[in-house]
Amino acid sequence: MIGGEDGGWLTVAGLGPGSEALITPEVNAALNEASDVIGYIPYVARVGSRAGLTLHPSDNRVELDRAAHALELAAQGRRVVVVSSGDPGVFAMAAAIFEALEAGPARWRDLDIRVLPGITAMLAASARAGAPLGHDFCAINLSDNLKPWSLIERRLRLAAEADFAMAFYNPRSRTRSEGFARVLELLREVCGPERPVLFARAVSTPDEQLRFVPLGQACADMADMRTMVIVGSSLTRIIERAAGPILYTPRSAPCLAS
Amino acid sequence: MIGGEDGGWLTVAGLGPGSEALITPEVNAALNEASDVIGYIPYVARVGSRAGLTLHPSDNRVELDRAAHALELAAQGRRVVVVSSGDPGVFAMAAAIFEALEAGPARWRDLDIRVLPGITAMLAASARAGAPLGHDFCAINLSDNLKPWSLIERRLRLAAEADFAMAFYNPRSRTRSEGFARVLELLREVCGPERPVLFARAVSTPDEQLRFVPLGQACADMADMRTMVIVGSSLTRIIERAAGPILYTPRSAPCLAS
Repeated sequence: MIGGEDGGWLTVAGLGPGSEALITPEVNAALNEASDVIGYIPYVARVGSRAGLTLHPSDNRVELDRAAHALELAAQGRRVVVVSSGDPGVFAMAAAIFEALEAGPARWRDLDIRVLPGITAMLAASARAGAPLGHDFCAINLSDNLKPWSLIERRLRLAAEADFAMAFYNPRSRTRSEGFARVLELLREVCGPERPVLFARAVSTPDEQLRFVPLGQACADMADMRTMVIVGSSLTRIIERAAGPILYTPRSAPCLAS
Repeated sequence: MIGGEDGGWLTVAGLGPGSEALITPEVNAALNEASDVIGYIPYVARVGSRAGLTLHPSDNRVELDRAAHALELAAQGRRVVVVSSGDPGVFAMAAAIFEALEAGPARWRDLDIRVLPGITAMLAASARAGAPLGHDFCAINLSDNLKPWSLIERRLRLAAEADFAMAFYNPRSRTRSEGFARVLELLREVCGPERPVLFARAVSTPDEQLRFVPLGQACADMADMRTMVIVGSSLTRIIERAAGPILYTPRSAPCLAS
């Protein structure tokens, strides 16, 4: 039993990218002890129902309401797991929980709160493709729901100048592709058309699909809401093989290409 | 059974940051099927010995020799797992394997090679502290064994200008602390003394220790070879609580602080 004798607790847990073989034992233990599981509909659907467990699926874009609900249930003595896909600390529910905690009643600060890491999408995608994040890299959320487009653009230019490999979360919203098309255009200007790009869709699920293209051939339609995009650094290489290409970035950087 | 009927295979597997509760079922399955486990001494020591399993511990800084050895054993029909701490694709053995593969005999390219992701140190540290990597971030290896100091410095300046939270791997070598002291000095110049810094040592092991300090009070001695350092972005905040502080970066960035 986690937490006090009769006390509630709140655990924010990462379910990994999709396969059960990628869920840590720690997360499974928390789910087994939970009285309530809260999260975005498709993530809650990954948790099996059982006697004594209440599932609380909710829609996208209600993260703060969901976070406050989870905190309040824990304050009432429930054993609450908030589930995220991937890792809860990477563009997911952990930050939303702490935003709600900070804005909420002081008594919430006495709650037993834990975050349990998970296999985040960029590392699952990287492993399937080889090791494109084997040297310095950055992770950028391309959704402009929560930040201005000007900041995304500025960050992309500086990241390219720093010669990071780049992992992009949420390349496309449900309805729009213009933002991601502009990202690709900007990167082509700075990095040139030969830079390797990985589109990794639904890694570790039956829908998994990997696509390797040079930046000059990358287009926004190659990503959907289940796609992770990784753009290599100037050093990222492809090894061709009969069994399929390997994308990797060597550990050494002899000098900056600029 | 992974791979062909009698064929050897090579799997590069991430053991996570230390606790067995953070090793994925996929990695445990590979270890159970292995005939040979290869890696740096303390990582191989985490794998239990059993009949039919040969352990090949080796010292640090021999990554390419180790990689070639692993590939050659797999080519001889052995079932080989190369173990890394954390995630094998993040400053670890996966890139070394592909460097050796690319430089080695053509027959190696027909081998069955897989990379299995693991919980990387920065995400384990982030989860323990709250969610400091909850907005855009970068990961930088501070070791200058494999890249020039000038590149590290240039990348740090650009990353700070982009207002990334930053996760630093290998802040200190076995013998030297000057490099990391220069990193802290550079960041103080660019980010100011109030920026929150997390020193997270040996997360998920009995030696775990977290320390939260403002950048102005951070010094190189606070890190050793088992320490992960996370420096917040301009938006990273601390929530004070009786149970210990929470460090997190909100999901929203209203505008760039510059």
